Amino acid sequence: MQKLRRGITAPKGFLAAGIHAGIKKPPLLDMALITSVVEGPIAGVFTTNRLPAAPVILDRRHLKRKVGRAIIINSGNANACTGLQGLRNAEETAQRVANQLGCLRQAVYVGSTGVIGPTLPMPFIQKGIPLLVRRLRRSGGREAAQAILTTDTKVKEVALEGSIGGQTIRIGGMAKGAGMIHPDMATMLAYLTTDIAIEQKVLQTSLQKAVHHTFNCISVDGDTSTNDTVLCLANGLAGNRMIRSRSSDLNQFQRLLEKACHSLAMQICRDGEGATKFVDIQVHGAKTNAEAKQIAITVATSLLVKTALFGEDPNWGRVIAAVGRAGPSIRADTIHLSFNDIVAVNNGEGCCASLERRIHRIMRRKTFTLTITVGKGKGSATVWTTDLSFDYVKINASYRS
Amino acid sequence: MQKLRRGITAPKGFLAAGIHAGIKKPPLLDMALITSVVEGPIAGVFTTNRLPAAPVILDRRHLKRKVGRAIIINSGNANACTGLQGLRNAEETAQRVANQLGCLRQAVYVGSTGVIGPTLPMPFIQKGIPLLVRRLRRSGGREAAQAILTTDTKVKEVALEGSIGGQTIRIGGMAKGAGMIHPDMATMLAYLTTDIAIEQKVLQTSLQKAVHHTFNCISVDGDTSTNDTVLCLANGLAGNRMIRSRSSDLNQFQRLLEKACHSLAMQICRDGEGATKFVDIQVHGAKTNAEAKQIAITVATSLLVKTALFGEDPNWGRVIAAVGRAGPSIRADTIHLSFNDIVAVNNGEGCCASLERRIHRIMRRKTFTLTITVGKGKGSATVWTTDLSFDYVKINASYRS
Repeated sequence: MQKLRRGITAPKGFLAAGIHAGIKKPPLLDMALITSVVEGPIAGVFTTNRLPAAPVILDRRHLKRKVGRAIIINSGNANACTGLQGLRNAEETAQRVANQLGCLRQAVYVGSTGVIGPTLPMPFIQKGIPLLVRRLRRSGGREAAQAILTTDTKVKEVALEGSIGGQTIRIGGMAKGAGMIHPDMATMLAYLTTDIAIEQKVLQTSLQKAVHHTFNCISVDGDTSTNDTVLCLANGLAGNRMIRSRSSDLNQFQRLLEKACHSLAMQICRDGEGATKFVDIQVHGAKTNAEAKQIAITVATSLLVKTALFGEDPNWGRVIAAVGRAGPSIRADTIHLSFNDIVAVNNGEGCCASLERRIHRIMRRKTFTLTITVGKGKGSATVWTTDLSFDYVKINASYRS
Repeated sequence: MQKLRRGITAPKGFLAAGIHAGIKKPPLLDMALITSVVEGPIAGVFTTNRLPAAPVILDRRHLKRKVGRAIIINSGNANACTGLQGLRNAEETAQRVANQLGCLRQAVYVGSTGVIGPTLPMPFIQKGIPLLVRRLRRSGGREAAQAILTTDTKVKEVALEGSIGGQTIRIGGMAKGAGMIHPDMATMLAYLTTDIAIEQKVLQTSLQKAVHHTFNCISVDGDTSTNDTVLCLANGLAGNRMIRSRSSDLNQFQRLLEKACHSLAMQICRDGEGATKFVDIQVHGAKTNAEAKQIAITVATSLLVKTALFGEDPNWGRVIAAVGRAGPSIRADTIHLSFNDIVAVNNGEGCCASLERRIHRIMRRKTFTLTITVGKGKGSATVWTTDLSFDYVKINASYRS
């Protein structure tokens, strides 16, 4: 496994472009296009929000054909809560890309991120599409990754290669978002490309697993957006033997895919709005992995825990209180809690005050680990989170202008 | 139904006292005692946190005998996460009060609120109990209500009277807390007294109903504490005909009890940490009341909604996104959302930009109502919440000193 320089266009046969189309203020890039030179299987995982945005509705429909050729994304407008007109605009966007590329509309996927409510400014999008197609190139990954950002402060890209069955295969990716974010800049979007030859059904299962272990384990503010989307497009140009559900090579691909998703997820979490701390929450000893994750997520989203992290306050009582309200039944006298290697709670009882100073020293670091043991079960989970700072409130309270 | 001047001691036969025992810095009051001159039925509702504090464990045990005579509360220390020693300290506290009053230990209930972790400073408590007993009096309600506060900025009391079966009956109450609060000052505590004659079983059911409609409908930060407790002690001195499960007078008592609980709940919510807004969230048209409440709570606890309330930002997209992730299945085109009388979303589509200015004007008020319709069902719910301000982060992030 090796890191590559390029992002989304690192795998063979992928091109990308990003432009300023006019949705955001100039010179901000606001439209991106990713294409493969040939059609291939595509997999998708979408928001569980009951009120998905128009692009999510459209992508779910297109995914029934299981084949992808291009992904077009705009930032600055989420095309969410836009009713029937919103869906028509997403369809038109896909159709116009399809016309330019000479493929079916159903092979084009659409993503949007930005303000919820207003309809898409279609004239900008109509003019932008031919510009994007003309600009498509192997080195266009970086500008595409820039064009999907909203309140992000950093571009998020990944590219890895590995050897599968004697053939070199590559995975590229780009992402935006940090939980639900700016006043309206909702959304976590992540797009992955690979030149591996793989069955769509296997790709879909692999992506779901990878998302479960990576993107679904980061939490900035616990809000699930109307637009969250992860897509993975595979074009088979690496020339490996087709990966099927029982292929011995599948595990290797799964590891590579999870590594790419993990990298993007960590980049998102570290770029969380106003975040000053980046904390690993590990839960062990639960009855099941699901219960462990439920506990870890409850701790990660507790306002009291998050403000204590920001305040560097070794207030372990708040962690224990969050563990207690997570849902799973727990015996108090089985609980252990450590900050890195310092034990704060042992068999349910707190450490002496002198240790608090050492815990405080750990909390002054930018990153550290909270390890929580809740019994003798085999369930475990890891969740990554950030603190809740003055800047989070500032970023999210400011009146849109 | 009429409001009375006194709080917890307004009903016949109740005495109270509050003192500075030494748990907090002088001259802050930190211990309170409420007693009835005679034993009577008592009802209790406790935290659903799986790691309840020692006083909650003890009170649940005592409640099996269903009879109460006194309630003793300390602030400054939550006696939570204190293991077996914590339980012994709670028992000793109850036993010492029982010895002074000449009753069984099981008729004495204990409450604690404050820092989680440290064990109770028993010498202060041992010395405080006889002082409290000597100080018990009819006018002691106010000082008792003061002695249970932590980060609260205001004393929270209520007293009502009504006529039941030709007899005047009274309900008094006091409370503390605003969701989970200061660095460690966890806990919502509420204590109610009444001189009505009522069966314990009926009182328990009535209290559960009242809590469901009042205390369980306020949300400041969504954290459920290890110590949350509501107790209601009835001594029967009003001389009414005993209220049984089929008494025609029961409805009237239920209304009075809910009114008392509602008043305390609103006082808690309005005193929420750092709160600058006090918002009514009403959900209608859900399939069931439970689904309506789930939606209302999700909106009320969304960080993005709460920061938008603080920023007076008419960002209705965040409300819709929270409705969508609440769980219940919803059709987008049935959604309506109003800020007071201004419609922001109609049949799932957003209002025009000109209305946003009018919504912004409503949001500049200290209190307003969000009304959300999610379908044509009969389920409805109301939840009261506050915004998330810089001060919330400040109060909760500051290192304990």
